Amino acid sequence: MFDKRLQQLKDKIKKEKLDAVFISSVSNIEYLTGYSNFSKDEREAYVFISENFGYIVTDGRYSEAIKKQVPHFTLFERGHKRSIEHLFKKHKKAIKKLGIEEDNLTVSEHKTIKRHFKNLKHFKVGYLRSIKTSDEIKKIKNACRIGDLAFDYIIKRIKVGVSEKQIAEQLENFIKGNAAIISFPPIVAFGKNSSIPHHQTGNKRLTINDKLILLDFGAKINGYCSDMTRTVFFGKPDGRQKKMYDTVLQAQEEAVDFIAKQQALLINFAVKNGKQIKAKDVDKVARAYIISKGFPTISHSLGHGVGLKVHEHPSLSPKSKDFLTEGMVFSIEPGIYIPNFGGVRIEDLFVLEKNGLRQITTSPKNIIQL
Amino acid sequence: MFDKRLQQLKDKIKKEKLDAVFISSVSNIEYLTGYSNFSKDEREAYVFISENFGYIVTDGRYSEAIKKQVPHFTLFERGHKRSIEHLFKKHKKAIKKLGIEEDNLTVSEHKTIKRHFKNLKHFKVGYLRSIKTSDEIKKIKNACRIGDLAFDYIIKRIKVGVSEKQIAEQLENFIKGNAAIISFPPIVAFGKNSSIPHHQTGNKRLTINDKLILLDFGAKINGYCSDMTRTVFFGKPDGRQKKMYDTVLQAQEEAVDFIAKQQALLINFAVKNGKQIKAKDVDKVARAYIISKGFPTISHSLGHGVGLKVHEHPSLSPKSKDFLTEGMVFSIEPGIYIPNFGGVRIEDLFVLEKNGLRQITTSPKNIIQL
Repeated sequence: MFDKRLQQLKDKIKKEKLDAVFISSVSNIEYLTGYSNFSKDEREAYVFISENFGYIVTDGRYSEAIKKQVPHFTLFERGHKRSIEHLFKKHKKAIKKLGIEEDNLTVSEHKTIKRHFKNLKHFKVGYLRSIKTSDEIKKIKNACRIGDLAFDYIIKRIKVGVSEKQIAEQLENFIKGNAAIISFPPIVAFGKNSSIPHHQTGNKRLTINDKLILLDFGAKINGYCSDMTRTVFFGKPDGRQKKMYDTVLQAQEEAVDFIAKQQALLINFAVKNGKQIKAKDVDKVARAYIISKGFPTISHSLGHGVGLKVHEHPSLSPKSKDFLTEGMVFSIEPGIYIPNFGGVRIEDLFVLEKNGLRQITTSPKNIIQL
Repeated sequence: MFDKRLQQLKDKIKKEKLDAVFISSVSNIEYLTGYSNFSKDEREAYVFISENFGYIVTDGRYSEAIKKQVPHFTLFERGHKRSIEHLFKKHKKAIKKLGIEEDNLTVSEHKTIKRHFKNLKHFKVGYLRSIKTSDEIKKIKNACRIGDLAFDYIIKRIKVGVSEKQIAEQLENFIKGNAAIISFPPIVAFGKNSSIPHHQTGNKRLTINDKLILLDFGAKINGYCSDMTRTVFFGKPDGRQKKMYDTVLQAQEEAVDFIAKQQALLINFAVKNGKQIKAKDVDKVARAYIISKGFPTISHSLGHGVGLKVHEHPSLSPKSKDFLTEGMVFSIEPGIYIPNFGGVRIEDLFVLEKNGLRQITTSPKNIIQL
């Protein structure tokens, strides 16, 4: 598996006429090495790779584990007396042009690299990751299945008096009981809180007046994430709430239909592997539909790739430059949010397959009244 | 509370002859705004602050929450049609010299900023954060207390056949049962696994031959972290294990004594607030002691500050430029690691008070035989 990923990376290095790349993002390091224990928000490791070498740079806390678990890389152990610049010096001459992750590398790291390599160029690993292998898709489907089970489990536990945090905890415990972990802290929003798309799950307790209940959560198993949102009703929705729900659901369907039609067109016109479906066009279709019904535009992107991270390439947003191609896994999650009233979001994950778009989260989307 | 922090920040901006600073690190944003719901590894918010303005920049997903919870900042909502550059343009003329977090800001963010502000200078918020208020110390002590209770709870549950992951889960559940969360995924290492300082807690089950059990974990409550390590024995330690344990414990005491003596000296010589205790000297004392007993040097730093993050300023390491001053909270955690044999680490948190160093994790450090 890692051999293939490394080969793809090396092909990309060659194609972009680089002599080597320096990888600093933790999830890309995990993707290339398979080692997942580095801190997400500290700088504990780097990968430095060319046609002829592949280093993993880390410190003594990890050396023994890396030697055992990452034999396909050469370990360079940084220490108080042996900085990463020793490694740079060694390869200075052979590397004329080095790829760096500009959207991850920090200014101070960049300064260090600049001392040794003059010609630096932005390099994106993300696009490699966005096209999943069948094995990766299987893992994401497993995570989705646990998410679906968790949804079925949790809606039975929503009662007057329960708090958002309690529901989030029960979701988490259920997911853990299925040998997974949460892919991000669950968003549980009761009543008006649902109008905040990324509401911070709190101590609010459910009352009979809190009609809207928004649940956004995911599982992570074998390193791969799921992500799903459902909005359910506590009692009967009023007319406005029902219109919001129907509009959001239809907006999702509009986006799905658009992708299907685009794909069919491309196949008919014999354009290869659907490369021409622009992610931003999909965003536009759903967004325009919501606006056409008199609601405010979506205050976030329509969707995002999911894999090792719960947010990754591609981006389905108005300014995205991404194309949707076979093997990508992404969310489609339109929403309507009205301050001091409430919000509705419906989110599912999809795989773009050769013969169409397959939905891989399968929880019901009819109006659920608890 | 935030007024005081902002005033300190503004004083520092003035002292460093800057016109404004641009803050990108999530924990610093949390420190200044009090809002803790931004993703740790995505770029969802920034703070842009000067003597005359204070903006929090984020997107529509968070706007409503920010308006409610962060009234001491002006919200600048980024959107698909309103980029952060609109804000930069507005303040371009008034800002000649801008502070940035070079160890956090990415190369691509730097490029965007550079288009508007030519004179950029490295700015460190971390040093402000490293000196804690009494309220912050109280919160860290609460987290330490939960850690101590968790240690007492968990050592009763270590039996033959239990797995590292099961112990980690029980630790986490206990901490959650005390209204806290874990400050990082617990490190539970049985037997030889203890020789990996940051062992990835796995499926290994305890056998009667696994003498060494290393437990490194912490709680987080009201935003503040604790961090503690204990190494206990399953059965009677052999001579080498006992010598390792005694050496590590004594190394910690050597470091503590050194700080106490330095502080006494400084008070006697009337040097103000202990500013002259060099963090690297403390590291050296413990490190040299371990080497003097014939063991390898510590493969990590002797210690680190703890607060909103489990790792923050100051750093007690050979190359640290930090001084230890009153109000700092940090770990002292010497360790000895012998590949294919095992490791011992003992870690406690300390507050440097006016009249001495106070240990705030209080779990026993005598040899514990389970």
